[in-house]
Amino acid sequence: MQQNANLTDRLSRRLSLFLFLFLITVLVQAQTITSPDKNLSMTFELAANGVPTYQLTYKKKPVIKQSKMGFEMKDVPSMMNDFTVAKTEQNSVNDTWEPVWGEQKTIRNNYNELLVTLNQKEHKDRHIRIRFRLFNDGLGFRYEFPQQPELKYFIIKEEHTEFNLTGDHKIFWIPGDYDTNEYAYTTSQISQIPGLMEKATIDVHAQHPIKTLAVQTPSMMKSSDGLYINIHEAALLNYPAMNLNVDPKTFKFSTHLTPDAVGNKGYMQTDTQTPWRTIVVSDKATDILASKLILNLNEPTAYEDVSWIKPVKYIGIWWEYFVAGKSTWAYGKETNVKLTDDYTKLTPSGRHGATTENAKKHIDFAAEHGFDAVLIEGWNIGWEDWFGNWKEEVFDFVTAYPDFDVKEVQKYAESKGVRVMMHHETSGAATNYERRLHEAFQFMQDHGYNSVKTGYVGKIIPRGEHHDGQWMVNHYNYVANTAAKYKIMINSHEAVRPTGLHRTFPNWLAQESARGTEFEAMGGLAPDHATILPFTRLMGGPMDYTPGIFQTDLSYYHGGEQRVNTTLVKQLAYYVTMYSPLQMAADIPDNYTRFPDAFQFIKDVALDWDDTWVLEAEPGDYVTIARKAKGKNEWYVGGITDENTRTANVRFDYLPKGKTYIATIYADAKDASWNKNPQKYTVRKVLVNSKSVLKQQLAPGGGVAVSVKEGSKQEQKGLKKL
Amino acid sequence: MQQNANLTDRLSRRLSLFLFLFLITVLVQAQTITSPDKNLSMTFELAANGVPTYQLTYKKKPVIKQSKMGFEMKDVPSMMNDFTVAKTEQNSVNDTWEPVWGEQKTIRNNYNELLVTLNQKEHKDRHIRIRFRLFNDGLGFRYEFPQQPELKYFIIKEEHTEFNLTGDHKIFWIPGDYDTNEYAYTTSQISQIPGLMEKATIDVHAQHPIKTLAVQTPSMMKSSDGLYINIHEAALLNYPAMNLNVDPKTFKFSTHLTPDAVGNKGYMQTDTQTPWRTIVVSDKATDILASKLILNLNEPTAYEDVSWIKPVKYIGIWWEYFVAGKSTWAYGKETNVKLTDDYTKLTPSGRHGATTENAKKHIDFAAEHGFDAVLIEGWNIGWEDWFGNWKEEVFDFVTAYPDFDVKEVQKYAESKGVRVMMHHETSGAATNYERRLHEAFQFMQDHGYNSVKTGYVGKIIPRGEHHDGQWMVNHYNYVANTAAKYKIMINSHEAVRPTGLHRTFPNWLAQESARGTEFEAMGGLAPDHATILPFTRLMGGPMDYTPGIFQTDLSYYHGGEQRVNTTLVKQLAYYVTMYSPLQMAADIPDNYTRFPDAFQFIKDVALDWDDTWVLEAEPGDYVTIARKAKGKNEWYVGGITDENTRTANVRFDYLPKGKTYIATIYADAKDASWNKNPQKYTVRKVLVNSKSVLKQQLAPGGGVAVSVKEGSKQEQKGLKKL
Repeated sequence: MQQNANLTDRLSRRLSLFLFLFLITVLVQAQTITSPDKNLSMTFELAANGVPTYQLTYKKKPVIKQSKMGFEMKDVPSMMNDFTVAKTEQNSVNDTWEPVWGEQKTIRNNYNELLVTLNQKEHKDRHIRIRFRLFNDGLGFRYEFPQQPELKYFIIKEEHTEFNLTGDHKIFWIPGDYDTNEYAYTTSQISQIPGLMEKATIDVHAQHPIKTLAVQTPSMMKSSDGLYINIHEAALLNYPAMNLNVDPKTFKFSTHLTPDAVGNKGYMQTDTQTPWRTIVVSDKATDILASKLILNLNEPTAYEDVSWIKPVKYIGIWWEYFVAGKSTWAYGKETNVKLTDDYTKLTPSGRHGATTENAKKHIDFAAEHGFDAVLIEGWNIGWEDWFGNWKEEVFDFVTAYPDFDVKEVQKYAESKGVRVMMHHETSGAATNYERRLHEAFQFMQDHGYNSVKTGYVGKIIPRGEHHDGQWMVNHYNYVANTAAKYKIMINSHEAVRPTGLHRTFPNWLAQESARGTEFEAMGGLAPDHATILPFTRLMGGPMDYTPGIFQTDLSYYHGGEQRVNTTLVKQLAYYVTMYSPLQMAADIPDNYTRFPDAFQFIKDVALDWDDTWVLEAEPGDYVTIARKAKGKNEWYVGGITDENTRTANVRFDYLPKGKTYIATIYADAKDASWNKNPQKYTVRKVLVNSKSVLKQQLAPGGGVAVSVKEGSKQEQKGLKKL
Repeated sequence: MQQNANLTDRLSRRLSLFLFLFLITVLVQAQTITSPDKNLSMTFELAANGVPTYQLTYKKKPVIKQSKMGFEMKDVPSMMNDFTVAKTEQNSVNDTWEPVWGEQKTIRNNYNELLVTLNQKEHKDRHIRIRFRLFNDGLGFRYEFPQQPELKYFIIKEEHTEFNLTGDHKIFWIPGDYDTNEYAYTTSQISQIPGLMEKATIDVHAQHPIKTLAVQTPSMMKSSDGLYINIHEAALLNYPAMNLNVDPKTFKFSTHLTPDAVGNKGYMQTDTQTPWRTIVVSDKATDILASKLILNLNEPTAYEDVSWIKPVKYIGIWWEYFVAGKSTWAYGKETNVKLTDDYTKLTPSGRHGATTENAKKHIDFAAEHGFDAVLIEGWNIGWEDWFGNWKEEVFDFVTAYPDFDVKEVQKYAESKGVRVMMHHETSGAATNYERRLHEAFQFMQDHGYNSVKTGYVGKIIPRGEHHDGQWMVNHYNYVANTAAKYKIMINSHEAVRPTGLHRTFPNWLAQESARGTEFEAMGGLAPDHATILPFTRLMGGPMDYTPGIFQTDLSYYHGGEQRVNTTLVKQLAYYVTMYSPLQMAADIPDNYTRFPDAFQFIKDVALDWDDTWVLEAEPGDYVTIARKAKGKNEWYVGGITDENTRTANVRFDYLPKGKTYIATIYADAKDASWNKNPQKYTVRKVLVNSKSVLKQQLAPGGGVAVSVKEGSKQEQKGLKKL
């Protein structure tokens, strides 16, 4: 029986080997990592049929239930299932880095990483990777497509990444759309979205609402058990922007990419990857605002020399186009013009805003009050019929109207130590802009401009493309990169929502990409709007919100009922609550002259920071933030509320211990509110130290702004302690 | 009764006034003009419901029966009917002009014009104009849209211009297509098109055949009663190219414009117009080839300085990519590359054609034999996976492969008095080309290139756009115009078919836009192909046909059955029958060295002409043309036949009377044919004068070429009279 025993033995050995392998496989199919602080836990698991899934918990509460991941392809087999785990790797990083500009001088980058390599045997071992990075403030993950014989080029039909939420959360949302992010926010439960979608889909220029139920990112949610969850993306490069399909019954969200002109959703060439899908989580709303996860998931700056990149505080010939009724972007009365027309032969309307004279007046004001730059919109030919015709060659970016002398204005600005900010409205014709881009930037360099506000109002050309599609994503990045070659800083309007790319391209100072101050002149913004923005739009990067409207009652200009729905002080607070290295004092200069004491805060406030403390925050209700000016012993605090009055709790515990400072407190007057006495405020100086706490009443739709400076003993003398 | 009489009188006067007005209206609704020689007659008429129509007769025979004209719009009311005639104007022009280069030094422009202004009362007197120009060789007409309050911007859904033919003509056609014109011709009756369409729609890269029955222009037809009719268009600017819908039962053709990515067919801004719709007519086929109608309908040159624009005779590193099997455009073995790759790290295939060494060899040959330039394809990085992936950034147009030293090649070429011709393959990514265009042209200027062959192989980017749509039409024109700023000449391949724009933009020397010599290496061209091209593709402008293949049996290189379907002599004749200011000697230099006597004709033949005589021609059968070299007492004759042998009748009556010249006659040998002994030929010298007539036997698929020079008495001595 020796032989048989041998056989049994061998069979048994083989069996155990098989069992062992099986166990290994099972083990490998599911893998868990935790955040450095152990609060977050993420599990990757291959479900039945080899479907990749992930799930996320925070302090043992589920945040994202098991959720599928994968891709449908147009031209190659799908990547939805039939995967096996070929390899898993773990890695930990804990370091710091310094942004060129930002809310903090130093940013900590601390995460545990799981890299899963997935194989599709049926497709000749075609493989992809999913890289998870779990930070203390949330999860980021992306798909990676390595170079391999079986995967060179492919076209994405749809990405199917799910975010399987745990319940009917409260959500701050705007409708999913391929072209605009300038909707007003709706606050509701997820289950209420279907009933509210039609009302939420207000008219916005060149909109393309998604036909199925979808919302945009950054998507801010709050669960009934107090978890704050923010879903967005980081490092959106060479890929379409993501919307989120909403299932209002199961609370399952899933990716809905922006299609191109022929319905495709991404042209990929290996080695490549998707942007990071980000889930920022905490049980404290302030942690959401303090999160640097999205920035950490972006690549370091791509530029060797960044010395020319500077934050900019500016005024502009702009708000008068919306409110004063006296001026227009257009010069001529005619409404059918071509770039080849002789503009000196047009009939001047007499209402053109961007004249040499008006430019000089603004330069004078900027110089007097220490602004870096003056934005001049409407300086260049083409505005007579710039919008609504899907016209390609609307602007040439280099030809001034007959009443605007580029050289004279530039000379004047230079003599006053002020920059002129260029304006490149494209009317959505990105092709026209690209073919003229070098000439346009060369013109800027030749005439001393070092920053440009770009605009994409209108349907995109290439026709059929969308503002948020892969082609346009590449366009914005191309413009920012090309601008860097000319040492030009960019402020893009109507572009795709930001995803932290300003870390990599720090000359891309700010974007609009949301409903900003201009809408205060076109129906008004809800009083809670600016308490939501930091939790949504600003998660991706700085916004050119253009605050600083002092004359909030717009009937001042020509009657009517239109008003900016804030108090004057709330406008001051925005300079702190709405972080941006680019800040406009958007009102007409005359209005600042009428309120010199309040204007002082705008003149003082910093644009770049050593550190930031989110003191208190609740989306839709209030935000209070303190920041320390970069390289200076100065602190600025901004606090805002929604339509309700409230008492802000302004701590000063970030001040160096044992020292006394002068705090200038800009506060709403007692009887002020966004719709009554919005311009009534008080300015008082008090002494503070690290133990001080300011309990400040904010008016309905109001705010508080505080500047903290050392001041000489002389200056401190006579001031009371807080 | 005085009062009653008065009343009757007044009523009667009113009635006559009414009748008179009515008659005037009727008279004005139909208006006829004739060509200067009275052979052609064109009638414009408003049909029932105010539908504009036109009809055309030649020597009293109907050519185009009453045919409707009009437009369906996307965003404004249609322009199909409800027109009244507001005004008609007539005008006559008879003058001459000189092209920068061409088939004739002086071109006569002689036409009678009818300009009809049409009104749509229902649409607030919205009005358009139709301008008819009737030449001795045919009719041109276009729609004009003047600036007016009721018409500023509009989008065309379809142009509905009809060409109502009189019968079941013979037609030389290729399938209607939005993207390619590189089909082989089919000769059939109109009624046979449906049955032949599927077979005719052969595979061509990036094709987009029209789903309904349609053919391309230039559309060449012959009626059963011997009328030759050619329908095409002139001055295709800012408008999509036209295909022709075919009704195979009524023989009614109608315009089918190329749509854009979203299905629109033209974005228009008044003041504007369509291209000219052209109908060249004669009872002599030779008149069709001699017609200058399309050129006359184009605008004079747009450039002030044209001194830098010169015809070019060139060789190239090109044919070896198709036949020799030894070389490739690509350098590396890898098939997944990016512009950012380090190409020195690729694995060289060892078969790269565009090496510095090979370039120098070609430059030597060009210099030795008096060629102006050497085209070098495959010099720049990106060819490893350049085609088929709808990839945008395939080429950068400025980075050479590691084995091609731009500076060294340029220096060498300059020392030999030869230019290098640049090659800009775009892979269809027009957006990529536009954004890099200035850099690419600057690179050319910096390195001494003055001409470029452009290519558009592949699906167009902007995705969804087509090669022949309005956006791409504008692109090609933009490239030609921008090139002029750098004093660069253009030779565009895979671009929209030409429409005489080389009059306006004479640096746009030639185009491909049809099935050219390259297809001889990919299945072969039919022996009648080149007898059709002058009646079709060449009606619009010069073609870079790349003739001159001496080694026609391609099994010479590596076996197989592939051959060029002509005799060697027919290849010589092409230099005259295929008019172009840009002529390639396309074969591999070694093959010319083997046939130095035949090669002499290519070296001698002119590129620019004082005059041209179409001696005999029949589409699909034969073409014989004589031309006088510009500014020289030299004449060149080319005659070709289809698959049948024939006797060409070469007259010399254009020679100055009373003088004797030396004619060098390159003829097929007696036993030669396109598929047997194609390289057997004779070269003989004889004396000719204006009374001489050469009766020359052409082999099946053969030709004849003749050069006529004065020669010294010494040279003439001993030569026989023809």
